[in-house]
Amino acid sequence: MTSHQPPLWRRAVAEMLGTALLVCIVVGSGIAAQQLSPNDVGLQLLQNSTATVLGLTVLILMFGPVSGAHFNPVVSLADWLLGRRSRTGLTLAELGTYVVAQMVGGIGGSVLANAMFEVGTSISAKDRATAGTLLGEVVATAGLVLLIFSLAATRRGILAAPAVGAYIGAAYWFTSSTSFANPAVTVGRIFSDTFAGIAPSSVPGFVLAQLVGAAVGVGLLVLLFPAASRMADDVVVPHPSQKDGS
Amino acid sequence: MTSHQPPLWRRAVAEMLGTALLVCIVVGSGIAAQQLSPNDVGLQLLQNSTATVLGLTVLILMFGPVSGAHFNPVVSLADWLLGRRSRTGLTLAELGTYVVAQMVGGIGGSVLANAMFEVGTSISAKDRATAGTLLGEVVATAGLVLLIFSLAATRRGILAAPAVGAYIGAAYWFTSSTSFANPAVTVGRIFSDTFAGIAPSSVPGFVLAQLVGAAVGVGLLVLLFPAASRMADDVVVPHPSQKDGS
Amino acid sequence: MTSHQPPLWRRAVAEMLGTALLVCIVVGSGIAAQQLSPNDVGLQLLQNSTATVLGLTVLILMFGPVSGAHFNPVVSLADWLLGRRSRTGLTLAELGTYVVAQMVGGIGGSVLANAMFEVGTSISAKDRATAGTLLGEVVATAGLVLLIFSLAATRRGILAAPAVGAYIGAAYWFTSSTSFANPAVTVGRIFSDTFAGIAPSSVPGFVLAQLVGAAVGVGLLVLLFPAASRMADDVVVPHPSQKDGS
Amino acid sequence: MTSHQPPLWRRAVAEMLGTALLVCIVVGSGIAAQQLSPNDVGLQLLQNSTATVLGLTVLILMFGPVSGAHFNPVVSLADWLLGRRSRTGLTLAELGTYVVAQMVGGIGGSVLANAMFEVGTSISAKDRATAGTLLGEVVATAGLVLLIFSLAATRRGILAAPAVGAYIGAAYWFTSSTSFANPAVTVGRIFSDTFAGIAPSSVPGFVLAQLVGAAVGVGLLVLLFPAASRMADDVVVPHPSQKDGS
Repeated sequence: MTSHQPPLWRRAVAEMLGTALLVCIVVGSGIAAQQLSPNDVGLQLLQNSTATVLGLTVLILMFGPVSGAHFNPVVSLADWLLGRRSRTGLTLAELGTYVVAQMVGGIGGSVLANAMFEVGTSISAKDRATAGTLLGEVVATAGLVLLIFSLAATRRGILAAPAVGAYIGAAYWFTSSTSFANPAVTVGRIFSDTFAGIAPSSVPGFVLAQLVGAAVGVGLLVLLFPAASRMADDVVVPHPSQKDGS
Repeated sequence: MTSHQPPLWRRAVAEMLGTALLVCIVVGSGIAAQQLSPNDVGLQLLQNSTATVLGLTVLILMFGPVSGAHFNPVVSLADWLLGRRSRTGLTLAELGTYVVAQMVGGIGGSVLANAMFEVGTSISAKDRATAGTLLGEVVATAGLVLLIFSLAATRRGILAAPAVGAYIGAAYWFTSSTSFANPAVTVGRIFSDTFAGIAPSSVPGFVLAQLVGAAVGVGLLVLLFPAASRMADDVVVPHPSQKDGS
Repeated sequence: MTSHQPPLWRRAVAEMLGTALLVCIVVGSGIAAQQLSPNDVGLQLLQNSTATVLGLTVLILMFGPVSGAHFNPVVSLADWLLGRRSRTGLTLAELGTYVVAQMVGGIGGSVLANAMFEVGTSISAKDRATAGTLLGEVVATAGLVLLIFSLAATRRGILAAPAVGAYIGAAYWFTSSTSFANPAVTVGRIFSDTFAGIAPSSVPGFVLAQLVGAAVGVGLLVLLFPAASRMADDVVVPHPSQKDGS
Repeated sequence: MTSHQPPLWRRAVAEMLGTALLVCIVVGSGIAAQQLSPNDVGLQLLQNSTATVLGLTVLILMFGPVSGAHFNPVVSLADWLLGRRSRTGLTLAELGTYVVAQMVGGIGGSVLANAMFEVGTSISAKDRATAGTLLGEVVATAGLVLLIFSLAATRRGILAAPAVGAYIGAAYWFTSSTSFANPAVTVGRIFSDTFAGIAPSSVPGFVLAQLVGAAVGVGLLVLLFPAASRMADDVVVPHPSQKDGS
């Protein structure tokens, strides 16, 4: 952490709010899709994924300058891991703060979406864990981690907002799990028994697969982008204040 | 207001024309969707929201250099509010002019769409106000204001056109109200009894919710982007002439 | 015409090829849509418009550095008109060459699409001219001309590729005519009796409406962007060689 | 090949992995589409093409700095051909390595998609070769080659990621073959008897048409962009290390 960054409390608020809005987008657009196109699940997923591409891109643009716009515990974990040697990543205390903020935000986002659509917050009964979907989560998370940190390693973090949005939009479709790829979003989606929900029993498997995927992603990163070990701490979006001031 | 800006009459024409075309896009694509895909309301909304993402982005690109491309009274209001201390925002007289131009444009856009589709201008009977949709408008407007002014506060106003387009496209789906988030558009949409219409009885609640949302957005902005108080007057798009000349 | 531009024959080839591929995209994706989604005309139009947004953007990127990527007689006409005083636009001889190339290309594009889909080239029987659709063509063309030349007037011609693609994608939906906005494309679309076709009897009205729309667009341009009278000849895309060399 | 490029083994890994993920995106999203929207083939293709636009753009961003992100034997072939005189393209040995890596990756991508969706890897029975679809492949590949190398010839390789993604998304619809335009992807798609599969009997015709298309594309390139003969070796994406260092 450099002295140019916003204070940790402000970054935690950004992570919490950003993760809340991300889950709110996923869950809310899922409810809208289910209500408006009841006869075609694929059309529902297209509406759901389109809303997520657009919304996630905007959230990263919006909160990136404050917190880096991780919104995802495995991204923060990889940031800590990759930045340890060069002392440019999150510290362990910051990592803990980020993850707590993301988890709280994820749950809050589900509650907010339920309230807007007046469906009531309840626990999802949608079982999603199979061998295929767990492999899907490994692939989805590996690709996400490789994408984010390869952009950072090649000093193209400015492209992260549209690139991560587009990646998730594709991964909704090409992975069998519709690409959760994010433990905070996974936990948040427990709290809505609607289109985008996930039963608690499927969560441990999903989160474990996401951790494995993150490890695969970090491994591929080190293989393909040796410069990644010299990365700065601006994982997702460079801080404009740093660009101006230094 | 700086001396580099176009005269107020030209900015008012741009706000009027831009808001008219925005409402024309929303209402017109709604009529087309309803006529062409009569059996699936969700598919209609996908067509409607896709057209709006593309069209709104273009309108901001087109009119941004003239007027800042607000097209929205609560955006102009927030611009006045945030720019008061630094004397860089709209003046109160300019704010009044912008709002009148936006309102006139909003109504004109509905009339134009009706004329193109030969459906006749009549008052919408579509009641939209519920506790859920009003909460939806608060969320939608708060996010819109936070987005626009966070980009300005971090000197990334150049990204406003695609970012605002994408935001509204997501908000069509993740808010329960399909995201009006704009009093001038709300009033304009009274005048078409079609897919995108809104009954007059729902308008006061929607506008009030939008004002509350704008206040929430400004509050979050000040919390997360303290630099916002030093903002320049180029809210949405920097004036190219200023970039070249100063 | 400056000495840095490619020779006229090469620019004519680019206009011909680009217009051919544009019509091929519109007609071909229309045929595919009609064959694959026979039960929902709105879904067909969504497929058709999505393909056009993507394809038109790419064509402007591809041919812009050669010819300016007009692909449209009314754009070339406006370029001649606006550039007369400053001697930076097309000359009358160049205008004639561009229009012929665009017309030939437009017809060739239809023939190519028909050949790929093995449907046979025949004259469309789809009557499209009504008071509403003619008004739609006026609006669509006015907006297109205003967009292209407002970007040029504010030295943002580099954005024309995605902006024009997005504009046409929106105008497919918000105008009642699905936005032809282009005499060469209109004539080309006569030669395919499929989804995107137009009966010859509707063509004069459409072209006249497009000319009126272009005049409206030029008028709005002069009103809102006085700098437009000082425009350079790079209407759509700046020539990279000029950027490097001068 | 300049001394700034990554070692060949790393570039081969990037080509293999990138091509694998590209085929995985095409095949996987095709399976999802088929399962979720069983009643409308056009809607399936819209889901399939949307996922590919987004995913291919991201893959080029991700692997471009390592290998140039060809993922396509005819692109590598054209790179070798066009760069021979100026000694800036691939060498023949590098070309061979790239093509093998792409072929292995293409097959692996199909196997991975099948595994995620638990459908089992088997040979496709979908016959696709007709006179019309072969013409479609010629057009699709000619356009792809012209696009990639025209961007390189005008020093706009930085735009290749979104431009190539958009091009393929349009070509899914406007060509009658849904635009394979890539021998490695064609071979990979043999190994999934699902929506995106292709019967082995159709492959020779498709690959031959792609080679013809690539020749047409190179011919048009030389006609329209004489500067293409002075091209650097960064076909798709400039190497950031080179931009920084030289």
